[in-house]
Amino acid sequence: MSKNIVTEKISEQLSVQYTYEKKLYSKQSDFQKVEIVEGTYYGTMLFNDDVAMVSTKDEFVYHDMIAHVPLFLHPNPKKVLIIGGGDGGTAREVLRHSSVEFCDMVEIDNAVVEACKKHFPQTSSVFDNDKLNLYIEDGVNFIKNCKKQYDVILVDSTDPVGAAGPLFNDNFYKNVFSCLSDDGILVAQGESPFYYFDMQKKLCQIISQSFPITGVYNYANSTYYPGGQWSFVLGSKNLHPVNDLNVSKVENSNLEFKYYNAPLHKAAFALPEFQRKALKDFISL
Amino acid sequence: MSKNIVTEKISEQLSVQYTYEKKLYSKQSDFQKVEIVEGTYYGTMLFNDDVAMVSTKDEFVYHDMIAHVPLFLHPNPKKVLIIGGGDGGTAREVLRHSSVEFCDMVEIDNAVVEACKKHFPQTSSVFDNDKLNLYIEDGVNFIKNCKKQYDVILVDSTDPVGAAGPLFNDNFYKNVFSCLSDDGILVAQGESPFYYFDMQKKLCQIISQSFPITGVYNYANSTYYPGGQWSFVLGSKNLHPVNDLNVSKVENSNLEFKYYNAPLHKAAFALPEFQRKALKDFISL
Repeated sequence: MSKNIVTEKISEQLSVQYTYEKKLYSKQSDFQKVEIVEGTYYGTMLFNDDVAMVSTKDEFVYHDMIAHVPLFLHPNPKKVLIIGGGDGGTAREVLRHSSVEFCDMVEIDNAVVEACKKHFPQTSSVFDNDKLNLYIEDGVNFIKNCKKQYDVILVDSTDPVGAAGPLFNDNFYKNVFSCLSDDGILVAQGESPFYYFDMQKKLCQIISQSFPITGVYNYANSTYYPGGQWSFVLGSKNLHPVNDLNVSKVENSNLEFKYYNAPLHKAAFALPEFQRKALKDFISL
Repeated sequence: MSKNIVTEKISEQLSVQYTYEKKLYSKQSDFQKVEIVEGTYYGTMLFNDDVAMVSTKDEFVYHDMIAHVPLFLHPNPKKVLIIGGGDGGTAREVLRHSSVEFCDMVEIDNAVVEACKKHFPQTSSVFDNDKLNLYIEDGVNFIKNCKKQYDVILVDSTDPVGAAGPLFNDNFYKNVFSCLSDDGILVAQGESPFYYFDMQKKLCQIISQSFPITGVYNYANSTYYPGGQWSFVLGSKNLHPVNDLNVSKVENSNLEFKYYNAPLHKAAFALPEFQRKALKDFISL
């Protein structure tokens, strides 16, 4: 039995421990400790500061839900921006939509990209796609100085501590709003209604101040992401995230998914009562 | 810092560790090790054989979803049977429905009832309710010899190992079907589509052999229950679990919930694509 262990503290009472066979990559970057390990059950896993980010076994859940909900909701998404998402999984799903002409991606930490290029081809193979433009820089500055208009902007960030802290900020989302076209849609990693509910509430409040339509939708991962229930927050300039979904667009796409489907898209916006009540002043559903 | 720890193994790579301040109860019964501990974050927790069962912090999720989905779907549930559920939480939610005339409950392990009566009043206070009839006996035998007809039967069991093993069985569900009235509904704890998917498939297959309508619905817990996504399997003699829900029945009940609401009832039956595909031969939705 291997004694290689990564311990992630979830709450003052709960820790989770991942054992692994082999450490493939380890680097202390300017922003965080980036590690890739290999195990028998979850396959390859990326950890930032000992917090599980993605595994080959279930990265499809998160990447399906951050990408396909806004990209099917938008009638014709051509220009997409991803802030964060250095493993490449979100970009991979974005670029499956044939309408997308290009996808800009702004990742602050080159170590994440480098580690995944070397050891996580399942997500990082997208870096060979000509439609992907990778910028290694601070997403906050990028969006402040941005002159382009995007149809969809995805904030694929870690928790709002350390490198991702400035992404949970009022000014940042005002700038995101300015960089979206008329039917533009924002989706941001929205934390957990169980463990990080104050952050989720704050994010909803911030986004609802800039966007006329705000929605929250839930999904459940298998490995990482304690508490099962996790959320994305969606800000929309014009399109209603449930009522404006054209189901036939999903059916006619000829795309196959492991997690996403049209009924689940709509269902994901139905929130547990405690979450619905706590967010009702911010969400438009 | 306390050094009291319960370790639960989730997969060959993942373990979760709960620390706690105080052990309130510990008994090796004929069926399992029953323990109740007290901690600062999750409050009181019940463990059977080191597997987390309920905590005061989030038992509402499971108990809302096992009870209110069938009890609101049925137009007039009067007679309810619970198999398992020794902590009392399921019975507590069942007996909030004013139509229910009585609730029989068959728990195999008196130690669970005893432990919860002493240390888990949040769920066990229901044992003082005159409408609740508690039988300490084997649910498999109870249902085999049962002459009553119930409107709703809930199988509130642990995983199909140890004491709960015989509940995941063909004959058992044939007998359950025979004990249900014309519009009768069964709901059974259905394991996880991530970690125990073979068991979930088997349970769906078994239930679909006896019941004309089979559905699966998902929920997500916060503490225990690894993998976030967990399921109930519903067998119905006549009522469609989504289309036959009378939403005004929920609204007119004047009952308040922390997890359940009518949109979530319907949404819970929309399954992730990998789960929907794998179960499509068994489910009727």
